[in-house]
Amino acid sequence: MNKAIFYHAGCPVCVEAEQRFVTALNPSDYQVEEVNLGNEKGRISEAEKLGVTSVPALVIGGTPFHINFGASINDLK
Amino acid sequence: MNKAIFYHAGCPVCVEAEQRFVTALNPSDYQVEEVNLGNEKGRISEAEKLGVTSVPALVIGGTPFHINFGASINDLK
Repeated sequence: MNKAIFYHAGCPVCVEAEQRFVTALNPSDYQVEEVNLGNEKGRISEAEKLGVTSVPALVIGGTPFHINFGASINDLK
Repeated sequence: MNKAIFYHAGCPVCVEAEQRFVTALNPSDYQVEEVNLGNEKGRISEAEKLGVTSVPALVIGGTPFHINFGASINDLK
């Protein structure tokens, strides 16, 4: 089982990405953790280290994929 | 079975998105068509009508998700 992390901030673009995109991942291959950086500011530095610059973003295998654009990481600090 | 369309242009960002992301979709839910707009310029207008402005992009249920940024649609014309 691979782990994927979906970073979001509860924004409309984030919610749409979560509902359409994250739920489309193969559940037998991926376990998805969802992190709301608006609420969990302590994890912003972790997201930045992974290369996340905006939300929503999905990190798979250590690689960040920015999906559309909801908010900049800097605006969540 | 839902249909998803992955628009790309063979760029490195596109290839990474395809290998990591598109292959992570649930194969029992989604059938993914891959379209290289660099080779199939006749489908650029179709992509634009769906709201695609850059590649790589994945259209699920009529909604475009732009994944990172490889190239602008305008640069493929």
